[in-house]
Amino acid sequence: MPVFCRLYPSHGRDFPKNTKTEDSSHSWQFGVCCRTLHTGADRPEPSLAAAPDRLPFSRITQEDLAFFRKIVPGRAITDPDLLESSNVDWLKSVRGSSEVLLRPQTAEEVSQILKYCNSRNLAVTPQGGNTGLVGGSVPVYDEVILSTALMTNILTFDSISGILTCQAGCVLENLSLYLEERDYIMPLDLGAKGSCHIGGNVATNAGGLRLLRYGSLHGTVLGLEVVLADGKVLDCLATLRKDNTGYDLKQLFIGSEGTLGVITAVSVLCPRKPKSVNVVFLGCETFEHLLKTFQLCRGMLGEILSAYEFLDSECMQLLNMHLKLPNPISDCPFYVVIETSGSDPTHDGEKLHNFLEEAMTSSLVTDGTVATEDSKIKALWSMRERITEALTHDGFNYKYDISLPVERIYQLVTDMREHLGGRAKRVVGYGHVGDGNLHLNITSPAKDPALLAAIEPFIYEWTASCQGSISAEHGLGLKKRNYIYYSKPSQAVALMGNIKAMLDPKGILNPYKTLPDNLK
Amino acid sequence: MPVFCRLYPSHGRDFPKNTKTEDSSHSWQFGVCCRTLHTGADRPEPSLAAAPDRLPFSRITQEDLAFFRKIVPGRAITDPDLLESSNVDWLKSVRGSSEVLLRPQTAEEVSQILKYCNSRNLAVTPQGGNTGLVGGSVPVYDEVILSTALMTNILTFDSISGILTCQAGCVLENLSLYLEERDYIMPLDLGAKGSCHIGGNVATNAGGLRLLRYGSLHGTVLGLEVVLADGKVLDCLATLRKDNTGYDLKQLFIGSEGTLGVITAVSVLCPRKPKSVNVVFLGCETFEHLLKTFQLCRGMLGEILSAYEFLDSECMQLLNMHLKLPNPISDCPFYVVIETSGSDPTHDGEKLHNFLEEAMTSSLVTDGTVATEDSKIKALWSMRERITEALTHDGFNYKYDISLPVERIYQLVTDMREHLGGRAKRVVGYGHVGDGNLHLNITSPAKDPALLAAIEPFIYEWTASCQGSISAEHGLGLKKRNYIYYSKPSQAVALMGNIKAMLDPKGILNPYKTLPDNLK
Repeated sequence: MPVFCRLYPSHGRDFPKNTKTEDSSHSWQFGVCCRTLHTGADRPEPSLAAAPDRLPFSRITQEDLAFFRKIVPGRAITDPDLLESSNVDWLKSVRGSSEVLLRPQTAEEVSQILKYCNSRNLAVTPQGGNTGLVGGSVPVYDEVILSTALMTNILTFDSISGILTCQAGCVLENLSLYLEERDYIMPLDLGAKGSCHIGGNVATNAGGLRLLRYGSLHGTVLGLEVVLADGKVLDCLATLRKDNTGYDLKQLFIGSEGTLGVITAVSVLCPRKPKSVNVVFLGCETFEHLLKTFQLCRGMLGEILSAYEFLDSECMQLLNMHLKLPNPISDCPFYVVIETSGSDPTHDGEKLHNFLEEAMTSSLVTDGTVATEDSKIKALWSMRERITEALTHDGFNYKYDISLPVERIYQLVTDMREHLGGRAKRVVGYGHVGDGNLHLNITSPAKDPALLAAIEPFIYEWTASCQGSISAEHGLGLKKRNYIYYSKPSQAVALMGNIKAMLDPKGILNPYKTLPDNLK
Repeated sequence: MPVFCRLYPSHGRDFPKNTKTEDSSHSWQFGVCCRTLHTGADRPEPSLAAAPDRLPFSRITQEDLAFFRKIVPGRAITDPDLLESSNVDWLKSVRGSSEVLLRPQTAEEVSQILKYCNSRNLAVTPQGGNTGLVGGSVPVYDEVILSTALMTNILTFDSISGILTCQAGCVLENLSLYLEERDYIMPLDLGAKGSCHIGGNVATNAGGLRLLRYGSLHGTVLGLEVVLADGKVLDCLATLRKDNTGYDLKQLFIGSEGTLGVITAVSVLCPRKPKSVNVVFLGCETFEHLLKTFQLCRGMLGEILSAYEFLDSECMQLLNMHLKLPNPISDCPFYVVIETSGSDPTHDGEKLHNFLEEAMTSSLVTDGTVATEDSKIKALWSMRERITEALTHDGFNYKYDISLPVERIYQLVTDMREHLGGRAKRVVGYGHVGDGNLHLNITSPAKDPALLAAIEPFIYEWTASCQGSISAEHGLGLKKRNYIYYSKPSQAVALMGNIKAMLDPKGILNPYKTLPDNLK
């Protein structure tokens, strides 16, 4: 869960210009309109994650700008101050040097832009809310930035089926508010909801807080409108739950990080708004107990279980120390946040009571507290959601987003602690137990190449040995593209390359992202 | 919902040899090893659905058979009696003339077979339980039949996460039984469960009874192992709920009807087994009331609603007349079958009681009955599930499987009745309201080309005018391949053709299926 995005002001307009902070694990500074990389002193050691050389795309000319100004009048931004926040990711870890930001309002405008860029061999970086964590939504060099920020129309909503269609630039939180007034909710919820765009959510196959209950976007997205690299508009914007007429093309674009096409509209199946929400904060003596508690609550809470998140005692210390958040229960090695949501408050309360009684009686859980009112629910959730914020106060962060068989997820934290010994300041684990998704963070007083070398490739090798994923929900973007082979066989990566070549033969769409360098 | 498949004995071994029955809407008879079609008197008029000429694939030689016997010793079937049931679909509406049926046990064997067939330019028809309804799983000419029937191993089951991995030939019902012993269920259920294979379910993106609750296979299938046309084994058999490392390749194969690769193993996320199941049979005066009742029950039954199915009074008459099934309630224009499944029998009962009270008080529902015990549940379900059986006793059937915005689904039945006037014996509608999926059937005393000409393309044009799908869950197969343009724009179909050409350049996999003829 990218809860840290909550810290990020909308569109990041207040980022310091041309500076970088120390709280990023991998930072690059690329020159403006030059052929080679700037290699500032703070650039990390060359590694698999380093950016490749600029590919031979054309460079923006005055004629290009004139064309863009004709297509999107008043919405072709070249003012460096205005461009600044689109050139840098919200972690301030990746910075490009684009000279033009285009803000189309329609798929037709996107189509004209891409057709032109494809013919001119101009590279393009699609950008939604720019809340990604792997450098996928900002230019690496001077790519044209194509923003969905002005594509904010809700197109249709069917209150019988709960199917919403909207343009790609709708902010997730705005969609949630729109739906809640109509007794529905979005099937996904993220910390970044105040900034992220639904098009970006789909392009990155965002996970988040509701995945355990409502499943992934591969199941809930019913249709997409996508503009392909050559400007063709692919209309797969169905609003049907079932459609078995040929290959399900929209699936290709879900999670492709803008490298195969630009998503311009989305239709999505929305669940009914729950009438009752409860949150419980529990403590467990061991991770094994925490897993047994998960099993128990899947059985006893059944259809009303909507989140099962965990944090370890190191996380709790960070929350206490840096954010002055007191532990709501007694000290334990592990903590769990459980959320239920259902249609009947009495029934939900009874189920929860029975589950808690069983969990306490069987000693799976040593302490706990329950919240039913909004303010206490928020307070308990903050123990989970503000961990990343607390981490930023603990020094330099090395951040990992790992998917593992659920019974293995904490073993990686334990093994990493042992492996690093005294080299790390802190090794902390938290995440979505229900989804088998661990957020592993390692802190250090300052950036420490030797520590990084001890972490990687150890962490990727460990993950691969369990058939895990080195990116559960964050995607590969620029930062992790070359680690893909730890989670995918070369056969699969080669096929991805073929798909890319088929849909974007010139490679203009979001270059240097998702696919590894050696495919180029 | 292909409930009619329940009528079909496992593997259809008792089909009469070389005969065709009259209960199929489109029938073809193709010659054995000849270059031109047999044009028997009962072959329908040439139409979009008719089979194309045989493509220039190689013909099986003795050397080929010798090779196959080496690869799958004792499992390369050439006895015409044994081949018979694999050459014909269960509706007995499409018959091929393959001379060899291969029954591999491993992905490696499938790989060797496909590598060989690709090099020899031999066409291959993958076949699971052969329960499809659109002629997708049988050869059209002399294609090699590649059956998954002997690939029946369950590979792993994780009782914490509920993730099952198994070979493609596992029969759905066997998987259900295996899981129920472990307190889980499969996320899909079909009438054909006693015969259909999980690999075939995934290859056809089967819908069925649980889709309303657990969503489509695009969400619940977590991994696939697929053998490509050239024999390469694509290992995407992840057992992770989240994995954002590159494009989600497995999605391409879900619903591609064996035209892009042969699925050899599947991993799937399984829900917990419900502790409580209730079924209600209700009557409504109008379809509008039926839709309002759907809205009401989505709100009041919420998370325990697991099916919302309907039938019209014409269906009820067929059930009474042909199967002697009495109406369990008083006569109404429309009937609804609602199923709940949950984790607490008392809570579920209370929710259902409250919903029924509200539905009756508000006059949305005029009569109803509830079942909580197994035998009565089965009896009520049979009112929905045995409609197709009843239809077969009513004459020649013209069958359609249409997806529409939920508020439009019965309008098509009404319009069709008006459009056909006295030309049809009966026009009946039933299906999955919750999924917007209508099964529209038209009966006639005998096959009637004039009637067919009145139905088609009217039904497809009507569906297209509502942005519906001409195949909600049955797929396109042989029978509907050329109607694809009613539901997909040419841009999308062209891209499907490019994907086919990329993955299967010689077109050996399940030729004449899914994609329209004019792409070849």
